[in-house]
Amino acid sequence: MSDRVILREVGLRDGLQLIKSRLDTNTKLAWIKAQAEVGFTEIEVTSFVPISVLPQFADAATVLAGAKKIDNLLPTVLVPNLRGAVMAMDAGAKKITFVLSVSDSHNRANVRRSTDESLAMLREVVAERDNRQDITLVTALATSFGCSMEGAVNDARVTQIAEFLANEGIDEINLADTVGYGDPIQVRRIFTDVKTAVGDLPLAAHFHDTRGLGLANVMAALDAGVRRFDSALGGLGGCPFAPGASGNIATEDTLHLFDRLGVDTGINLGALLEVRRHLAEWLPGEKLEGRLLGAGPANR
Amino acid sequence: MSDRVILREVGLRDGLQLIKSRLDTNTKLAWIKAQAEVGFTEIEVTSFVPISVLPQFADAATVLAGAKKIDNLLPTVLVPNLRGAVMAMDAGAKKITFVLSVSDSHNRANVRRSTDESLAMLREVVAERDNRQDITLVTALATSFGCSMEGAVNDARVTQIAEFLANEGIDEINLADTVGYGDPIQVRRIFTDVKTAVGDLPLAAHFHDTRGLGLANVMAALDAGVRRFDSALGGLGGCPFAPGASGNIATEDTLHLFDRLGVDTGINLGALLEVRRHLAEWLPGEKLEGRLLGAGPANR
Repeated sequence: MSDRVILREVGLRDGLQLIKSRLDTNTKLAWIKAQAEVGFTEIEVTSFVPISVLPQFADAATVLAGAKKIDNLLPTVLVPNLRGAVMAMDAGAKKITFVLSVSDSHNRANVRRSTDESLAMLREVVAERDNRQDITLVTALATSFGCSMEGAVNDARVTQIAEFLANEGIDEINLADTVGYGDPIQVRRIFTDVKTAVGDLPLAAHFHDTRGLGLANVMAALDAGVRRFDSALGGLGGCPFAPGASGNIATEDTLHLFDRLGVDTGINLGALLEVRRHLAEWLPGEKLEGRLLGAGPANR
Repeated sequence: MSDRVILREVGLRDGLQLIKSRLDTNTKLAWIKAQAEVGFTEIEVTSFVPISVLPQFADAATVLAGAKKIDNLLPTVLVPNLRGAVMAMDAGAKKITFVLSVSDSHNRANVRRSTDESLAMLREVVAERDNRQDITLVTALATSFGCSMEGAVNDARVTQIAEFLANEGIDEINLADTVGYGDPIQVRRIFTDVKTAVGDLPLAAHFHDTRGLGLANVMAALDAGVRRFDSALGGLGGCPFAPGASGNIATEDTLHLFDRLGVDTGINLGALLEVRRHLAEWLPGEKLEGRLLGAGPANR
């Protein structure tokens, strides 16, 4: 397994959206800089959403502008709709993830429209992207592995949407287990099906560790050929529609797994653990997950 | 994956050995009975060790006697030496696990003799077993996937010891990742090698979730044909020689994985979660792990 893997930090977006306290802009930029310095080449730095919904991201444009100045880093941003996409493009975002949910109920709860309505809106985002230069447009499919509201999600629906995205000129597809329902056999199956459907289009995996299967699902996605993974430092994150759910797979534990497997990420684990120590200072009182800081890397 | 899997609860042994407070005999038996009632057919109920070392197990014979009266349950016990094995046999144990470590340093720290000395002693245990009736003798190989003291452990040494055990008439071999060093590729490789070396001899896997890879390692062992797994309710357990290490894979999370995969264990997950709720009452103040109680099973 020698292909390079891109591990994308999403703690500053997925991780911060459920946190009550607001992290100030300078601390966000210090965190982004610290992770870029230990080797992260992609970090999801913010979300362009209405301030009334998520005041945590009121400083989105400032954070993005600061992150763009950091060497060797491609900052990515999340958007839930056309308005957010235009704001992100106007703010200079060069990689934008448009998020929608495969299950209608989750999409309605998250962005107040049906999945098909989000897909229609995405075509407008694509048109806007085509009017600008050098913007990579990703689509994240939340609830690809199940929905806390609807239960099982039809595999065929995921593949069908992925084909639509490929035809519309989306540059990368991110399959997200938003509510932690995925299991390794299902993950391998769905990624294999989608890969067959969309060919060489880059695929990314976004797993939560809600039921302890996060890293088992990473292994399954790796087996299926996925080379892009999201994770959040300290296992931050969650889903407002999955009560009691724990967060994203922890970046430090995921990186440790890749190191053990000999998978090249370009990221230094020891240096990352130093950043992880700072996280507890930046987010006092927040519950942090992740095993590696306590256990330490294995003695070789 | 339709072969039945035996999930063996080890919380009462591996889980209790690092806990400061002593759990009283009646509570231990209530716990054992509760897990037997939800479908566990094997539970490691105690350890026959010197009381001066582990006072938690001073009631070993009483616990074993009580557990033997529970319907449809085969209670198993752990022993670290010949003396413990004879005590266990005298107390009526019908399935006994003799533990030794593949790495000399860990074995010396744990039982104050070299690995070869433990293997020589094991021959005496086998002779003792052969003098009795209907006793199943398991050998657990601690540090099969790495040692916190010595670092990497040579795969060939694990296979060599497994072959020795098969030749000596051991009934089952348990490969243990005592310190949480195993990764999925290594786990698949070592179990495959050992299976090739020992043929149809039952193999069991004992994983700790020290670095978050416990369930990924379960998947790898399943792939390699392993059908016996140890786990501890609430992720109890640890290793005195692996500081900061978290415990065994949590029984509830492991069972949830098997349920998701359609692997038959004969154990009811919903009923097990009720037992898991009691665990917090039985062990007040102890840190319990496991994701499933908080997150709940997936909505189907």
